[in-house]
Amino acid sequence: MSRVQAPSDETTGNLVDRLLSGLPAEAVLVDPDVTTSYANDMASFCEAGVPAVVVLPRTVDQVRHVMRVATELRVPVVPQGARTGLSGGANASEGCVVLSLTKMDRILEINPVDRIAVVEPGVVNATLSRAVNEHGLYYPPDPSSWEMCTIGGNIGTASGGLCCVKYGVTAEYVLGLDVVLADGRLMSTGRRTAKGVAGYDLTRLFVGSEGSLGIVVGATLALKPQPPQQLVLAAEFASAAAACDAVCRIMAGGHVPSLLELMDRTTVKAVNDLAHMGLPETTEALLLAAFDTPDPAADLAAVGELCEAAGATQVVPADDAAESELLLQARRMSLTALEAVKGTTMIDDVCVPRSKLGELIEGVERVAEKYDLTIGVCAHAGDGNTHPTVCFDAADPDESRRARESFDEIMALGLELGGTITGEHGVGILKKEWLARELGPVGLEMQRAVKSVFDPLGILNPGKLF
Amino acid sequence: MSRVQAPSDETTGNLVDRLLSGLPAEAVLVDPDVTTSYANDMASFCEAGVPAVVVLPRTVDQVRHVMRVATELRVPVVPQGARTGLSGGANASEGCVVLSLTKMDRILEINPVDRIAVVEPGVVNATLSRAVNEHGLYYPPDPSSWEMCTIGGNIGTASGGLCCVKYGVTAEYVLGLDVVLADGRLMSTGRRTAKGVAGYDLTRLFVGSEGSLGIVVGATLALKPQPPQQLVLAAEFASAAAACDAVCRIMAGGHVPSLLELMDRTTVKAVNDLAHMGLPETTEALLLAAFDTPDPAADLAAVGELCEAAGATQVVPADDAAESELLLQARRMSLTALEAVKGTTMIDDVCVPRSKLGELIEGVERVAEKYDLTIGVCAHAGDGNTHPTVCFDAADPDESRRARESFDEIMALGLELGGTITGEHGVGILKKEWLARELGPVGLEMQRAVKSVFDPLGILNPGKLF
Repeated sequence: MSRVQAPSDETTGNLVDRLLSGLPAEAVLVDPDVTTSYANDMASFCEAGVPAVVVLPRTVDQVRHVMRVATELRVPVVPQGARTGLSGGANASEGCVVLSLTKMDRILEINPVDRIAVVEPGVVNATLSRAVNEHGLYYPPDPSSWEMCTIGGNIGTASGGLCCVKYGVTAEYVLGLDVVLADGRLMSTGRRTAKGVAGYDLTRLFVGSEGSLGIVVGATLALKPQPPQQLVLAAEFASAAAACDAVCRIMAGGHVPSLLELMDRTTVKAVNDLAHMGLPETTEALLLAAFDTPDPAADLAAVGELCEAAGATQVVPADDAAESELLLQARRMSLTALEAVKGTTMIDDVCVPRSKLGELIEGVERVAEKYDLTIGVCAHAGDGNTHPTVCFDAADPDESRRARESFDEIMALGLELGGTITGEHGVGILKKEWLARELGPVGLEMQRAVKSVFDPLGILNPGKLF
Repeated sequence: MSRVQAPSDETTGNLVDRLLSGLPAEAVLVDPDVTTSYANDMASFCEAGVPAVVVLPRTVDQVRHVMRVATELRVPVVPQGARTGLSGGANASEGCVVLSLTKMDRILEINPVDRIAVVEPGVVNATLSRAVNEHGLYYPPDPSSWEMCTIGGNIGTASGGLCCVKYGVTAEYVLGLDVVLADGRLMSTGRRTAKGVAGYDLTRLFVGSEGSLGIVVGATLALKPQPPQQLVLAAEFASAAAACDAVCRIMAGGHVPSLLELMDRTTVKAVNDLAHMGLPETTEALLLAAFDTPDPAADLAAVGELCEAAGATQVVPADDAAESELLLQARRMSLTALEAVKGTTMIDDVCVPRSKLGELIEGVERVAEKYDLTIGVCAHAGDGNTHPTVCFDAADPDESRRARESFDEIMALGLELGGTITGEHGVGILKKEWLARELGPVGLEMQRAVKSVFDPLGILNPGKLF
C-alpha cells in the first residue's frame, strides 16, 4: 500500500474546494475549533491527528463524491459514527477527511413478515431498537453505548453487548450492505432474504472492518420477534472462581440465559461508591443471570440451584421487571463507576473460552498486584468476554506506564488461554500490535492483501488495524 | 488469474511422482476406472472433466504437500467431500488433482462448557450430530444429505437444511478454520471463543467459497444445547397462495418454529406415488410446522389457528414424536420422489423474502405451464427458500432444453422478487452465469479480486463460481 501524507495548507484549500463542488456548504466543516472536536473516539492512549476537514453527507451520492475526491487527491478518509468506540478506530489521522455518517440517519423500512429493517448508517442503536419494538420486533445488539452509538459504527466494529450470550453479536444481524468503495463506486453485498450463498460473503467481511475497506451507506438488518420481558437473578459468591464455576455449570447444563454477567469485588464497590445502590459490599463476585423465556422464574430457579451448588452465598431472584432493571442498572454503570475511581480507565476486551474464565480473572488479580493498580473486572461471563478495566491517574506518568503494561499483560494472558485480544471492541489503534500477534504472519499477510484489494491507495482509515 | 491447462500424460506422470513423494501409495489413486468415479457431484447439467489423479490425504501435512506440488506444477485442484452437492461445485476439471478430504474424518474435541466441537473436514454431518447429542448438545445444520455429506462440504457450500428457520445455516456455526492455502501454507482463522472481532472475518469468507480460496483442513464449530423433541403439525390448504399467507401470518405473529416447510400438490402426489404414505391426495399445498419449545403443543395450537385463519382446510397436529417423524419423512423424501416422476430432476434453490413466497410459487406454476413441464415445489417456507424441481426425461432433447430454460426463468423471477439465485446449494458450475447477474459488475469484480489474493495462479477449483 502506498503511504498517505498529510496534505499541506494549499492542498487542504484545494481539497475543500473539490469537496464543496458536490456537497452543500453546511456539510463541510473547516473551523479548527469544530474539526478538532471530531479527532477522537472514547479510547485512552490512542494518538489522533487534526482533520483537514469534516464532512457530513446526507446522501449516498454525497458520500460517493467525497470518496472520488479523496481518491483523486490521495487524501485519507476516516469514517465516523458517534465516536463511542473504545479502540481509537475512529480517531482522525493528520490532515484527513473525517467522514461523519451521523446525518444519514433514516430508518427506511421495517418489515415484520420478512423480519428485516433497512437503515442508513447514522441511525442510533436505541432509536432503531425502539422503532422495531413498536412492530413487535427486536434488534438484539446492545452495546453499553446503545443510546448514542450508530448502527454504522456497530457494523464497523462488529459490536456486542449484554444480549450476546443468547442472541450473538452485530455481525449476525447484518444481511446486506450498500458500500461506497474507495474510488467512489457503489457496491451492494448480501441480500434481504433469510438465507443466501451467492458468492463470497463480502457482507461479513465488511462487518468489523473498522472503515478500512469501504464506507457503509446502507444496511439490511435481520430482526427477531420481541421476546418476553426478561427476569434477572443476582447471586453473590465468596470468590470470583466460584462465580466462574457457576457460569460453567449453567452453560454445561444446557441453559440459554438472555444475559449472564459478572462483576468483581472492585466493580461492585465502585458502583456502590458512585451510586449508593446498596449492592452487597462484602461480596467477592456478583453474577447476574436473566431469562426471557416463557417461564423465566422456573429457569431462574434452576440456575439459582446451580449457583448454590457452586458455592453462592446468596441467591436473589428479582420478582418483577422493575427489580430486574435495577440490577441491570448496576451492571450498566460499571464502566462509569470504575472511571470515577481514579479519573481515567483503560478498558480491555479479552475474550476467552468460557471454561477459562476463572483462570483469566485470577490472572488479572495477579497482574493488578504486580503493578500495584486497581483493575476492576466486569464480564459478559456467559461469552467468556471480560472487560478488565485498569483505573489510573493519567497525570501520574509512572502509573500511566504501569497501566499500559498491565493492559498488555492481560492481553498476553488472554491469548495464552486460547482467547482473543478483542471480543467486541475492535482493534483500532489500541491493539494493532496485538492483532499481528493473534493472527500470526500468514494470517496478517492475507488480511493485508484483502485490504489492498479494496483500498489500493491506502486512503481508508489508514493506521488502523494493521 | 492465469489460465490453468490440463496436463499431458508426461506431466501427469511427473505429477503422480511428486505427489507420491509426500503421500503413501494407497492415498494416490490413478486407475481411470476409479478416478472417473470422482468426477461428479449430484448436480444435473454440469460438465465434468476426468481427474489426472485422486488423492486421499489423512493429515494436514499431506494436504500441504498436495498443494505445494499443485502450485509448483500449476495443476488445478478440486477439493471434495461426499460429492452430494447440487451445483457441480465438486465436479472435476480435466486433468485436475481431486483432493478428497473424506479420510480426514476425526472428531477431535467436543466441549460442553465452551459448546464447541473441533473436527476434521471429512466428518459426516450425521456422525457429528449424533456424537454431540450424547453430550446433550446440538449441531443444527441438517441438509437433506446429512447422513452422507461431510462438514467440510457443508462449509464449502454454506449449506442449510430444515432447521434454518430457527437455527440458521452452517455459516453461523463456524467459529474458526484451519486452511491450507494454494501454496501449501497453513493459516488459522477465527477463534474458539464465543465472540471475537480481531481483524477481518476470513472465517466467514471461506464458508461458502466452494473450495476456491483454500482447503479447509479443520474447523471449530459452535454447538447449541439440545432442544426438547420437536412436535410437528400438518396443515392442508386449497391453494399454495393460502399456505404462503399462513407462513406470513406465522412469522409476522412472532412465532419461532423449528421448521416450517411447504410441499405443493405435485410434490405431495410424487411422495404418495413413491411411498404410499397416505398424504391427502386432493390437497393443493401441505404446510408442516414444528416447535421444539418447552410447550410445543401450545405453540402448535396457536399456529394451527393462524393456518385456519389463512384458509387451511384441515389442521392435524401430531400427538407424539413418532407421528411427527412420519410427517417429516414425507418432506425428506420429496426430492427422491420428484426424481422418480421422470427419471431426472433439476433442483433449483431460489430464496425470496418470505413475503414474496406466494408470488414465486405462482410464477413457478406459470413457468411449468409455459414449458409444459412438471415442476414440483418443496420449500423451506419459513426462510422463503424454495426448491422448484423440474422433472424431465434426460433422453428427450427437447424436454431437456425446456427444463434448462424453465430453470433459468425461475431464477430470473427470484431475482425480480428481490431474492437470490441460491439460498443454500451454492453456485458451482450450474449458476455461474447467474452469479454475475446477481452480483452486478462491481460486486463481481471485487469478488474476483478477492479470489486472486488467495489463488493467484487460479489452481483452486477453477471454473466454479465465476
